[in-house]
Amino acid sequence: MAQDKKVEAITARDVDFAQWFTDVCKKAELVDYSSIKGMFIYRPYGYAIWENIQRLMDAEFKKTGAENVYMPMLIPESLLQKEKDHVEGFAPECAWVTMGGSEKLEERYCIRPTSETLFCDHFHDIIHSWRDLPKMYNQWCSVLRWEKTSRPFLRHREFLWQEGHTMHATAEEAREETQRMLEIYAKFCEDVLAMPVIRGRKTDKEKFNGAEETYTIECMMHDKKALQSGTSHYFGDGFAKAFDIHFTDKNNQQAYPHQTSWGASTRLIGGIIMTHGDDDGLVLPPRIAPVQVVVVPVAQQKEGVVEAATGLYNTLLEAGVRAKIDTSDRSLGWKCAEYEMRGVPVRVEIGPRDMAEGNCCLVRSDTGEKTVIKSVELTETVRRLLDDIHANMYAMAKKNLDENTFDLNTWEEVKEMIDTKGGFAKTKWCGALECELAMKEKAGVSSRCMPFAQSGTTGKCPVCGKECTTDIYWGVAY
Amino acid sequence: MAQDKKVEAITARDVDFAQWFTDVCKKAELVDYSSIKGMFIYRPYGYAIWENIQRLMDAEFKKTGAENVYMPMLIPESLLQKEKDHVEGFAPECAWVTMGGSEKLEERYCIRPTSETLFCDHFHDIIHSWRDLPKMYNQWCSVLRWEKTSRPFLRHREFLWQEGHTMHATAEEAREETQRMLEIYAKFCEDVLAMPVIRGRKTDKEKFNGAEETYTIECMMHDKKALQSGTSHYFGDGFAKAFDIHFTDKNNQQAYPHQTSWGASTRLIGGIIMTHGDDDGLVLPPRIAPVQVVVVPVAQQKEGVVEAATGLYNTLLEAGVRAKIDTSDRSLGWKCAEYEMRGVPVRVEIGPRDMAEGNCCLVRSDTGEKTVIKSVELTETVRRLLDDIHANMYAMAKKNLDENTFDLNTWEEVKEMIDTKGGFAKTKWCGALECELAMKEKAGVSSRCMPFAQSGTTGKCPVCGKECTTDIYWGVAY
Repeated sequence: MAQDKKVEAITARDVDFAQWFTDVCKKAELVDYSSIKGMFIYRPYGYAIWENIQRLMDAEFKKTGAENVYMPMLIPESLLQKEKDHVEGFAPECAWVTMGGSEKLEERYCIRPTSETLFCDHFHDIIHSWRDLPKMYNQWCSVLRWEKTSRPFLRHREFLWQEGHTMHATAEEAREETQRMLEIYAKFCEDVLAMPVIRGRKTDKEKFNGAEETYTIECMMHDKKALQSGTSHYFGDGFAKAFDIHFTDKNNQQAYPHQTSWGASTRLIGGIIMTHGDDDGLVLPPRIAPVQVVVVPVAQQKEGVVEAATGLYNTLLEAGVRAKIDTSDRSLGWKCAEYEMRGVPVRVEIGPRDMAEGNCCLVRSDTGEKTVIKSVELTETVRRLLDDIHANMYAMAKKNLDENTFDLNTWEEVKEMIDTKGGFAKTKWCGALECELAMKEKAGVSSRCMPFAQSGTTGKCPVCGKECTTDIYWGVAY
Repeated sequence: MAQDKKVEAITARDVDFAQWFTDVCKKAELVDYSSIKGMFIYRPYGYAIWENIQRLMDAEFKKTGAENVYMPMLIPESLLQKEKDHVEGFAPECAWVTMGGSEKLEERYCIRPTSETLFCDHFHDIIHSWRDLPKMYNQWCSVLRWEKTSRPFLRHREFLWQEGHTMHATAEEAREETQRMLEIYAKFCEDVLAMPVIRGRKTDKEKFNGAEETYTIECMMHDKKALQSGTSHYFGDGFAKAFDIHFTDKNNQQAYPHQTSWGASTRLIGGIIMTHGDDDGLVLPPRIAPVQVVVVPVAQQKEGVVEAATGLYNTLLEAGVRAKIDTSDRSLGWKCAEYEMRGVPVRVEIGPRDMAEGNCCLVRSDTGEKTVIKSVELTETVRRLLDDIHANMYAMAKKNLDENTFDLNTWEEVKEMIDTKGGFAKTKWCGALECELAMKEKAGVSSRCMPFAQSGTTGKCPVCGKECTTDIYWGVAY
């Protein structure tokens, strides 16, 4: 598509990955900058991806019994301060409302950076008996964090997410919930977004403010950096005590419930772009693509072409495929480049010659491969092709992850790997915070997670050299 | 259900309508009060109603070609001030963010009370050519208005809504859009919420800040007050000029686009409650009810009862009915009262005697009527019954509207009607603001709308007595 201005205007992915990313976000019309520093506009195409994520993820949440609610967006400062670790983590990046109309408020309110405190305040009011448990709530909303820097999808002062907040009668149940929800995120990334993940636990340094344990899924982007793509937190009864949430158990004893929270955000869209995109722009996983198939007539001024294309389009719609047809007066070249930029998984082309032979031509976005098929086999072929594309995209991303994950022994090896080629380092770790900090300072990496799949072998901590068994991943993170 | 504490605790509807309304909101677990004055928590059952509204309404919007987007929640003060009438209307009720983290902001931001200014700022960037039109955007979000008083669903400082914002090449197209979207709201109220509406135009006094024209649907609640239930605004090119939004038309001339916006909110849930609720609690229109049918076993300790009830429940689920089963250890009386309070349209009861005869018993929430049917006919009967209930609920509400709408001639008659029985007055109106203000002052009513269906007859303005032709509705509004 070298003739097309639109495509030429994108920076090559392997020349300047950051600029390529920004170009794709802008030119595929996913987001736009707003007049407010650090805040973005989610444009129709970007928002449509989020709607698909919401729809599919929400169905999974509801299968577990979670119910959706909506809490106020403002948190009184006194409420935010009830749990010490939590407020220390979030207060520095809160936006504060100090005026209501023309009146100065007696107490200032922050716009939610996350809603644990609001949920706990409500749980205090509604949890009294073992009959009231578990409470498994989820909320789709936006949150605000007053960060200094911003990048589309990866760091917004306001971003869209969901936050689940649950309360359980026992620690065991709460831990199960924490794992269950992480697994939902993991499966969603793999099965829907074609993004392989590493499931694991965060170190104490990297865990959520106020949590006892944080579980995470970590993905590797095309540039070999890490993207934390979903987290699930176990809180124990810390917040319950701070907010005086208690219940009468089946033995008529007073007890504190055990709590979790879990979240995923529009960062996932950043992950999709950086995992699958190429020099032609976005490449969307078929199961999340707002448009799965675009039908483009060739030589559409010729008699019957638009009708034939419309016939194929209707066939796809009837089969439940998310299809689009473009019969605008734009050139064929413009259209091809446009839908490649937008990462539509399959393009169907049909022109006079195809029609005469009862054929149409399918072009897949992941490999660029073209296949001529019988038009009567369109639906069946497209269905198979969408699954193939998903599988291929997953395989390519998995290959990237596997080929760029290295079993290493010392911080020097990690540093060399990061400096020369990039990737994830898998090492042992003694568990000491000093060694974790040293890895950051000396090798330039942060801990990503201690994988659930531990090898059970013994080895040496890459910093202090102590014998230890814990496997851990390190990388440079977004 | 006189034996049940839960039901006894609700104020009778015709004794104290306002208290009855608050009781229902709280006891049906639709909303709860939060720690922040004037802000409410949407609880699972209330939020589930909103999710159904969103799902069905969103599908209608998308059929018109509207696309969903998400704009930032903050508006810089300078942006809000660009359109004079608009800022005058909204600035007094804005919540202002003045601090980000520990820093005082150079310019303060308000939390959106509505997003015309943000959309216009974006339209300025993306509309250049006739090819870029129309732009038909919608956003589901919450907005903030710092009001002095609050009531569940009717007046929240933060409430959930959708706001559509569209730009068109011509005034005619924009006017058509304004009408089209109002009709979507009207049909939605009638066909889904079983709420009859009066479609019409607002007076200049009552129109939206900055709009040229506002269209509205007005509903009558059980207490004969009016609820404005959805509005659609035509802006002309006023905002376009203020925000310097222009495009090159097909004749290569510069032109300003013409604009609309349209919105509906969780007020609709208040409308549902106040239109259909009764002394047992909520009565939900079947098409919006989160649970359409609840299956309750009778004497469930008897052998086979729970299994039989579960069989009915599964049959309903398979037929696509939103069904629930309650096999908890609560008493039958508790369960009946609970689901009556929650307004579940149909309750299915099955006990040992029914089983023996192959029967089950259906109880409808709108009339309380019980029918024994053959269990094999369950799905078919339930489907018909849900439609019957909808039709009956609509008919009852329509009867209330018709019987309490009066053709009147003078403000004295209007005042007498309002003081003695309440309702809507339909009169002529000369069009003068003074007469409209006089109606408020003397008769205690505000203008609701000038109905699209104008009689064309001539009559006298109820205040100044001038001959005029415009029909107008007056009432006491929420």
